[in-house]
Amino acid sequence: MALTDVIEATRTAVAEDPFHAGAAFGAQCAAVSGTDTRVRVRIRGHEQTADETVARGGADTGPNPVEYALAALGSCQVLTYQVWAAKLHIQLSSVSVEVSGELDRRGFFGLAEHARPGFTGISVRVWLDGPESRERYEQLRQEVDRHCPVLDLFRAETPVGTELR
Amino acid sequence: MALTDVIEATRTAVAEDPFHAGAAFGAQCAAVSGTDTRVRVRIRGHEQTADETVARGGADTGPNPVEYALAALGSCQVLTYQVWAAKLHIQLSSVSVEVSGELDRRGFFGLAEHARPGFTGISVRVWLDGPESRERYEQLRQEVDRHCPVLDLFRAETPVGTELR
Repeated sequence: MALTDVIEATRTAVAEDPFHAGAAFGAQCAAVSGTDTRVRVRIRGHEQTADETVARGGADTGPNPVEYALAALGSCQVLTYQVWAAKLHIQLSSVSVEVSGELDRRGFFGLAEHARPGFTGISVRVWLDGPESRERYEQLRQEVDRHCPVLDLFRAETPVGTELR
Repeated sequence: MALTDVIEATRTAVAEDPFHAGAAFGAQCAAVSGTDTRVRVRIRGHEQTADETVARGGADTGPNPVEYALAALGSCQVLTYQVWAAKLHIQLSSVSVEVSGELDRRGFFGLAEHARPGFTGISVRVWLDGPESRERYEQLRQEVDRHCPVLDLFRAETPVGTELR
């Protein structure tokens, strides 16, 4: 199904009943026994591994959790560029994104009250290729940044509840 | 290196010079040409794929970006439980986490001004096993939730800059 069809099908379904706009996602994560840092991740049929680098006590069998967070942002930006280029009829022949983020590890380790555990700042550099003008791609960037789910998740507050079962 | 050694080494390095607390992470993401939705993700030596499900115009060759975001949170919770259990000398024989989140897709598709593109809510269910009391594990949960980097990234605002190159 082409992206323009997905956009049109979503518009029609939501116009019929806003309830159709709801979508639920999930992930299951478990410590691999016998290791301190390896985590088995299941997302529907997809299996992934998270781990720490050797310098941080792991075996580097996969990206670490904060790297997965940056990958989520980068891949969400790429997909949002594709969808919004289709929606706005902007030609786009390639899109790539580099995400980097900085942490103060005193936050995670509880070594300084003022240090937050999460990223202190993240930057996203975007390369677009295609026949449109710089201005048109700049308009596209602004629409993408208004509608990218993971960018919104990072930039704004999101209610997250945790509970022990 | 055991987690208690990592904790001690970090404490020592940071006490010597707070500059040592800084850490940088990154991810590179590119649309796979010939596809609308497939994204190749590179994180140091690790390669991943993000994609959409068939119903959303993709080929389901990997989790989608918002699923990666939930996986980042779940794996970060698991790792933070391991590190803080070691730090607080709390015995823990297993930890697993289930994360679920809900989205209003009108946000992403620009179909309703009031709908945010990101998750409207996320819940994290945690299963811990071991010989300690329920109260001790509840204390552990509180420390984990104060220090988990991805939980902080989701719950609080993080500055994210984007630019076209």
